[in-house]
Amino acid sequence: MSLNPLPPSPSRAAPRRRVLVVGIGAGDPEHLTLGAVRALNETDVVFLVDKGETHTDLRQARLDLCHRIIDPRHPWRVEEVELGAVRDRGDGPYRATVAAWRAARVAAYGDLVGGLHETETGAFLVWGDPTLYDGTLDVLAEVRAAGDVAFDVEVVPGISSVSALAARHGVTLNRPGEPVQITTGRRLAREGMPDGIDSVVVVLDTHEAWRQLDDDLDIWWGAFVGLPGERLVTGRLGDQRTTIGHERAAARSRHGWVFDTYLLRRRAP
Amino acid sequence: MSLNPLPPSPSRAAPRRRVLVVGIGAGDPEHLTLGAVRALNETDVVFLVDKGETHTDLRQARLDLCHRIIDPRHPWRVEEVELGAVRDRGDGPYRATVAAWRAARVAAYGDLVGGLHETETGAFLVWGDPTLYDGTLDVLAEVRAAGDVAFDVEVVPGISSVSALAARHGVTLNRPGEPVQITTGRRLAREGMPDGIDSVVVVLDTHEAWRQLDDDLDIWWGAFVGLPGERLVTGRLGDQRTTIGHERAAARSRHGWVFDTYLLRRRAP
Repeated sequence: MSLNPLPPSPSRAAPRRRVLVVGIGAGDPEHLTLGAVRALNETDVVFLVDKGETHTDLRQARLDLCHRIIDPRHPWRVEEVELGAVRDRGDGPYRATVAAWRAARVAAYGDLVGGLHETETGAFLVWGDPTLYDGTLDVLAEVRAAGDVAFDVEVVPGISSVSALAARHGVTLNRPGEPVQITTGRRLAREGMPDGIDSVVVVLDTHEAWRQLDDDLDIWWGAFVGLPGERLVTGRLGDQRTTIGHERAAARSRHGWVFDTYLLRRRAP
Repeated sequence: MSLNPLPPSPSRAAPRRRVLVVGIGAGDPEHLTLGAVRALNETDVVFLVDKGETHTDLRQARLDLCHRIIDPRHPWRVEEVELGAVRDRGDGPYRATVAAWRAARVAAYGDLVGGLHETETGAFLVWGDPTLYDGTLDVLAEVRAAGDVAFDVEVVPGISSVSALAARHGVTLNRPGEPVQITTGRRLAREGMPDGIDSVVVVLDTHEAWRQLDDDLDIWWGAFVGLPGERLVTGRLGDQRTTIGHERAAARSRHGWVFDTYLLRRRAP
């Protein structure tokens, strides 16, 4: 592998805390970009946020990644924060729970960033792409708005689980010239397939929204895409619903949790 | 930079032509993933397709990338095809023109893949992400369906211009828990902002659809994102429309063409 070192970031005028929000891809270490490799090698403090939503192996995977990617001569340290889980059980004041959890998150991130020395660089490692269904950027905007600590933010885009899913299936997300919508399982379960859109990608589906949708949709489903436990199913939803249910249950019993994403498409008339 | 070599792809049973569709990101060389680096180093033939839509510097940029990334001890060659441009001038039978252009593309790709020896690997280098508004996968599916040549396809996902735009603006594509729609300028110009969706990303906008939209939308606009000529504009559309028009015209006169992408968002009520 021939890999010339890339030029460093342009130097900045005054010393200011620098916060990198680094997309590390959907789980496959090969999703890491050269930009993410450089960013990690400019990082003094790796921020690890445990949201309590998933197994501790995700924490370890990020640490392993840092140990593998960061030059051993470059010193770095870890600052960790535990936020606990926010879960949508469908039986409580979900919005209020989310608001309280979010306030705690803003405070915790403010502490992490405030703990940087003025010339240091800290990095949040984000699964997938920080610009798609990830709250880090919004939380950092709130921290900045609070005004207690001054810092710059740079975002390193990453391979989202949506891109990873489509790549593994070898399918294009949109039909030529047509739109594609990305939405959550929660919303799809409540509202069904949106009108006027033939291609819909579903993320964060704890609701198994695919159970109640039209048999005649095509589905490209994947769990743990790019990871050792990867499972892929594709075909007409009516034909694949049982298989997806079995795969999902098996993945959950094997790993204790499941991370899945899928593309739905109305068939051409 | 500490970068352990990644394991090679699993060996396959019988020799078969192998076609890689490699996302190389939105223009910034740092968008390249470790998977793309490995894929290029397993490539015997780099396929260059000139669609006549943009300047020859895009062709040279891909060649430069290969020379930079591929180990000099690994032999590779280039096979090139010129397709000419398909342009939507809004004054002809657009659909028929596209169909003829597409048939020529299927034939040309079939020749490229058919020109591989049985044990060789060829690679199409795709700007952005091959799964979003790129026709390579669909064309290869048609080549395979024609049945004249047998081959495997592997897709390496890439950083799309959509992700790159959002990263440079430090903005999340979706509001928390809400959907985001990706659509074309052609469709947006015809249909306006879609109902029920507050966040819309627009690609392939030769129509300058933003000219006719509601002043009270927020826009995050970018041209040549991640490239030396990058221009970014953000704010209320009514306030930024003139600036975007100027930036777009200036970019076009400087480069002879312009590649831009933008996120539109309805303001929270």
